[in-house]
Amino acid sequence: MTLGKRSDYGDSKFAGLEVPFPADVDRAVQDTLLCGFDFIVTPLVRPGHKLASPLAPGTTHTVPCPLSFDDVLYMDSSQWVRQVVGSVSGWIDPDSPEEQEASHSSKALQTELGWAAHLGIQAVLLPPVKHPLACTRFAQIANQTLEGITQMAIWLTVPIDQSPPAASSISSLNPPTPNGAQEGQQQQQQQQQQQQQQGSGAPGPFCSVAADPWETWNQFRTLCAHDPLLGCVLKLGPQLPPAHQLQRWLGEPIRAILLPTHVFTTNKKGYPVLPKPHQELLSTMFNMSIQVIVTGECVHQIYQPASLPPNPTPAELAAAAQQQQQNFISIDPTTGAGFTINNPGEAHPLRPYWEYLSYLFRKLPVLGSDEQLEADYRDYLQAPLQPLQDNLESATYEVFEKDTIKYVQYEEAVYRALCDMKARSKGKASPVVLMVVGAGRGPLVSASMRASARSQVPLRVYAVEKNANAVVHIQALLRREGWQDKVTIVTADMRTWQAPEPADILVSELLGSFGDNELSPECLDGAQRFLGPQGISIPANYTSFMAPVSCHKLWNDVKAYDDREHFETPYVAKFHRHYVLAPTQEMFSFCHPNRATPIDNNRHKRVVYTRPAESGSAIMHGFAGYFESELYKGVWLSTHPPTHTPDMSSWFPIYFPLKEPIYVPAGASVEASMWRCSGAHKVWYEWAVTAPSASPIHNVCGRSYYVGL
Amino acid sequence: MTLGKRSDYGDSKFAGLEVPFPADVDRAVQDTLLCGFDFIVTPLVRPGHKLASPLAPGTTHTVPCPLSFDDVLYMDSSQWVRQVVGSVSGWIDPDSPEEQEASHSSKALQTELGWAAHLGIQAVLLPPVKHPLACTRFAQIANQTLEGITQMAIWLTVPIDQSPPAASSISSLNPPTPNGAQEGQQQQQQQQQQQQQQGSGAPGPFCSVAADPWETWNQFRTLCAHDPLLGCVLKLGPQLPPAHQLQRWLGEPIRAILLPTHVFTTNKKGYPVLPKPHQELLSTMFNMSIQVIVTGECVHQIYQPASLPPNPTPAELAAAAQQQQQNFISIDPTTGAGFTINNPGEAHPLRPYWEYLSYLFRKLPVLGSDEQLEADYRDYLQAPLQPLQDNLESATYEVFEKDTIKYVQYEEAVYRALCDMKARSKGKASPVVLMVVGAGRGPLVSASMRASARSQVPLRVYAVEKNANAVVHIQALLRREGWQDKVTIVTADMRTWQAPEPADILVSELLGSFGDNELSPECLDGAQRFLGPQGISIPANYTSFMAPVSCHKLWNDVKAYDDREHFETPYVAKFHRHYVLAPTQEMFSFCHPNRATPIDNNRHKRVVYTRPAESGSAIMHGFAGYFESELYKGVWLSTHPPTHTPDMSSWFPIYFPLKEPIYVPAGASVEASMWRCSGAHKVWYEWAVTAPSASPIHNVCGRSYYVGL
Repeated sequence: MTLGKRSDYGDSKFAGLEVPFPADVDRAVQDTLLCGFDFIVTPLVRPGHKLASPLAPGTTHTVPCPLSFDDVLYMDSSQWVRQVVGSVSGWIDPDSPEEQEASHSSKALQTELGWAAHLGIQAVLLPPVKHPLACTRFAQIANQTLEGITQMAIWLTVPIDQSPPAASSISSLNPPTPNGAQEGQQQQQQQQQQQQQQGSGAPGPFCSVAADPWETWNQFRTLCAHDPLLGCVLKLGPQLPPAHQLQRWLGEPIRAILLPTHVFTTNKKGYPVLPKPHQELLSTMFNMSIQVIVTGECVHQIYQPASLPPNPTPAELAAAAQQQQQNFISIDPTTGAGFTINNPGEAHPLRPYWEYLSYLFRKLPVLGSDEQLEADYRDYLQAPLQPLQDNLESATYEVFEKDTIKYVQYEEAVYRALCDMKARSKGKASPVVLMVVGAGRGPLVSASMRASARSQVPLRVYAVEKNANAVVHIQALLRREGWQDKVTIVTADMRTWQAPEPADILVSELLGSFGDNELSPECLDGAQRFLGPQGISIPANYTSFMAPVSCHKLWNDVKAYDDREHFETPYVAKFHRHYVLAPTQEMFSFCHPNRATPIDNNRHKRVVYTRPAESGSAIMHGFAGYFESELYKGVWLSTHPPTHTPDMSSWFPIYFPLKEPIYVPAGASVEASMWRCSGAHKVWYEWAVTAPSASPIHNVCGRSYYVGL
Repeated sequence: MTLGKRSDYGDSKFAGLEVPFPADVDRAVQDTLLCGFDFIVTPLVRPGHKLASPLAPGTTHTVPCPLSFDDVLYMDSSQWVRQVVGSVSGWIDPDSPEEQEASHSSKALQTELGWAAHLGIQAVLLPPVKHPLACTRFAQIANQTLEGITQMAIWLTVPIDQSPPAASSISSLNPPTPNGAQEGQQQQQQQQQQQQQQGSGAPGPFCSVAADPWETWNQFRTLCAHDPLLGCVLKLGPQLPPAHQLQRWLGEPIRAILLPTHVFTTNKKGYPVLPKPHQELLSTMFNMSIQVIVTGECVHQIYQPASLPPNPTPAELAAAAQQQQQNFISIDPTTGAGFTINNPGEAHPLRPYWEYLSYLFRKLPVLGSDEQLEADYRDYLQAPLQPLQDNLESATYEVFEKDTIKYVQYEEAVYRALCDMKARSKGKASPVVLMVVGAGRGPLVSASMRASARSQVPLRVYAVEKNANAVVHIQALLRREGWQDKVTIVTADMRTWQAPEPADILVSELLGSFGDNELSPECLDGAQRFLGPQGISIPANYTSFMAPVSCHKLWNDVKAYDDREHFETPYVAKFHRHYVLAPTQEMFSFCHPNRATPIDNNRHKRVVYTRPAESGSAIMHGFAGYFESELYKGVWLSTHPPTHTPDMSSWFPIYFPLKEPIYVPAGASVEASMWRCSGAHKVWYEWAVTAPSASPIHNVCGRSYYVGL
């Protein structure tokens, strides 16, 4: 029934419940839906079933043993798709050091995954890897399945509990393997080896690579070539890893949070509640559209009258509910306010957990309209604009003009410039000549006219715009505002236009997501010939910034194009499910007017990003780029996170992908180089990583991507 | 407000209204919506406007003159997209024999199309071609625009009126050109030339190529390389072309029907109604999701009280409606039943036309659930199954098993075979051995058991299936029905299984959309070793059929892959918007059991399709394929249109595309060759057209497509 009616947190409103192997799947689904959950996670084959025996002479294929014989006759495929996630048997261990067990496990895993694909369920949940950093055969079978499927997802359970091993719940659903002792020894040996290899053993809770669950996940998915259908399910324990380690997961394809009932604590009224850190983690996950799956028995027996048997049937529960309504009412876990029971599902033993999740979900902050709008663009690749080559459509201008904050900043910059000029000219009232180069539909004309009115400095404006269709809108604007005698429209390319008089102020908005990437330097170098000797440019300067980033979703979207060209192209992207490995570094700066001779807008920058060892290792899928621009003394536009102009929405960051993700060990630095190059007719970037391991240089000679002059 | 609430006819529920250049677009839209229509078609620039004069020194680009100055300030882009289709000025004539007019027209056309793209409207309507078969410059400018756009569509108006020229409404919106007389002479000359070239002048209403509007459309779109964003809008006149010529249009990308008010006749009550042929054409168009656009002034003044001015404002109309409710009520045009006015839009002078269209739309037959289901697959390419190589998913079996008709036919075939055997054995009651090869989830086992019960002949069944997951379903079926002692499940590949005893009957369902294309011949040749000397195969034989087809949508979907491979692949497709050029011809036949030695399943067939000259010319995008199969004496399965098994839905036809569409002149025959070839591990088809012009042979050596053995 969903955790809440709101739609602003995407699919995270659907919660699941892990249940033991049911005698009747259809009924298990119905009970679970009645309780409030939206799907079940359940084993695919009978517990204890290992491999079916042959059925007839000549039989050559292993037949899986199904959930129950009735289910396959009576449940149709749409039910399986919507309401059931299958889980693979916990005993399966294809990497067991005992070859017979390993071989048997491999065959069983193939059979169970094949059965899942046959049923057409949306996802199948793999049990945790039993041998950290030694899961090759497990991954190979998962990978073969991924090769053959197009719809079903495969999820790997990753326990991220930080509790001491005794209290750990990692294998609560999976009985310990008979050779657990041996494994422990092996793990210790591996850990020691890893520490020796690493040289400096990093401090922190995961003191070795083998003990860090992220490392195990990273090995598994790297073996599976970062397949987009492979995701992870984080299983929480009572103790969460520290925040800086959790952050690493934000760029990963987390498909669900597995939440054992024993992780819940009990509040004063006896209801299950989550510790503060778990609440915060769930908020973050909801915000990323990640679903929650509850697992385990009820351990908060608040609704259970003493007279009931330990595992009551729904009929027994409903009857008891009728009799003892006080004990069965559904209660808000914080206020204690109660509601009458509406259906027998409210007497489900796990109902209080669902209600608590629903409470957490419903109290999430409401997204603003800007955030809602942005939500559609999260982790979605957009080709950067080429406004010099292409004419923008009216709708594109319309979107940009909606960012009032940006034009308020422009107005303030022009206002301060006009005030300074007024002060310098000691009140002389001759009009200031202001040229808007790239006027579009006229928003900078309006901002400048507002600044003129505020400063009481008269303006003579030239609005230069090459797109004849956009000029129609400026004409309409002038008529509406009565500015025809103050503003001259020039339908021309600023690079070829001959101005009739020198300008005092040159106003432009040519910045791209990476500052100079829409060729603002080249355009303004050309246009500054209109400027008088004291003339000023708004913007006065701009600088780009860059950080290494982990972003599985965006990288996989680039990979889906299956060619080199798309890996050598930067994209505009609203990073959402991502993790920034280290703080940004400054890249390229430009000032206007540029009085250098000759002007050289080529650049190269080598940057080093250091990472504290306790943040753990990470995977890097490319770079996120931002910019800061000073329009005029003290008036800034910034998309750079530390200084971001509040509520400004015109620019998303830029994403420079890497052909192959790079593994960054804990404590290692990232070194990268970026070039801005230009030829007679184009400008482009080239980029490469040089440490911890080298990548090829991307986009050599602008072969895949360039901005045309 | 849509013509009706039903959704089973797709987008055809949205109707449009062509209006003259409005002083205020926003209000024109609101008036039109109030009347019932969903969008307007309106000129993009002021009438009389030809080219804007330069605005300032140095201006280099032509600025379009907009609809009105206010519109561009107050209408946002979503309004333009949803509610406005632009029309290009009717005076524009880029192919004018006068160079100055042609050059001026070309520039104006570029400007208007650029303005339309800037506004982001969904489509722009081009006026009719003024010079049939001489529209090169017109097409070149449209084509350049198509190259630059990704969203907006370009629609060409194609008048298909058959009335004598004097009564023709082709240029009702476009004033006649000053040199109309010259054109007429030119056209006549062209017609004569074309007739001479064609040799035999075809009889019929379009007695020459130049006079046939389809030829003009075909030339225009061929110049534009069949661009998927280019569509046509058929403008009807009082007289429709004959049905066999109209049919040709069914494969074309018709985007709308332009319906002049003067085409409507008047019924006894004074309301506008359409002649029967027009009603039928509209039904066909609605069924293809094609929208209707009404054009012209109101010529049925039934709602207009004498006291009102000729062009009343909505306020005047509403007031009049209040006073004279009897005259203004909305009346069902056939029953005369009336309804009270709900809003002033019902007094719109064109309301009766909208109401009549709504009446036609609402009386369309309701689609059955099968048709609704099929509607999702119309004109959509599906890759043919490769059941030998791949295991089917449960959901795929589920879909096929829903076709009860098919299994009724199988039951009947087994029943007749059992009855014949019973008669031959004179009532001897030893069980008949029946093998189902490729049993899937068991539907043929059930059909055979039903036949056994009906005929009272006991069966010993072997269900042979290589997909171990599907076998789980057969196990469940046997338990449910209590057939465990009568049916033996064999989880094995029929090609390698060793049967324990000879079979009397071999039942299989291995047929594909083209009969033999899922390798039924090869599989059954292998499986017939199980058959005793008197053994029979169900099916006993099958034959494929093929016809040349015109199908712009499907062909463009193949083209969108932009490679050779996809043009050399056959697809399963539910042909909907298509035109079959000539009746099918028989292709390949196979009989089982096949006692030939050696067995040769390779085939070649050359076929000739003749077309009556009066059907006109046509374009050919490939071939549609079907099959007939005799299961057992007199029991058939057929997808071949003349003999299609009623209500059977398991198979859609197959589509063999051509790399380049082929023009088939009126009266010309189509000749084609098709091969069925086989190698050690694969079977494939090759195909080619040899007349009226040769195509390359497609899929040489199965390089692009084959079915693996």
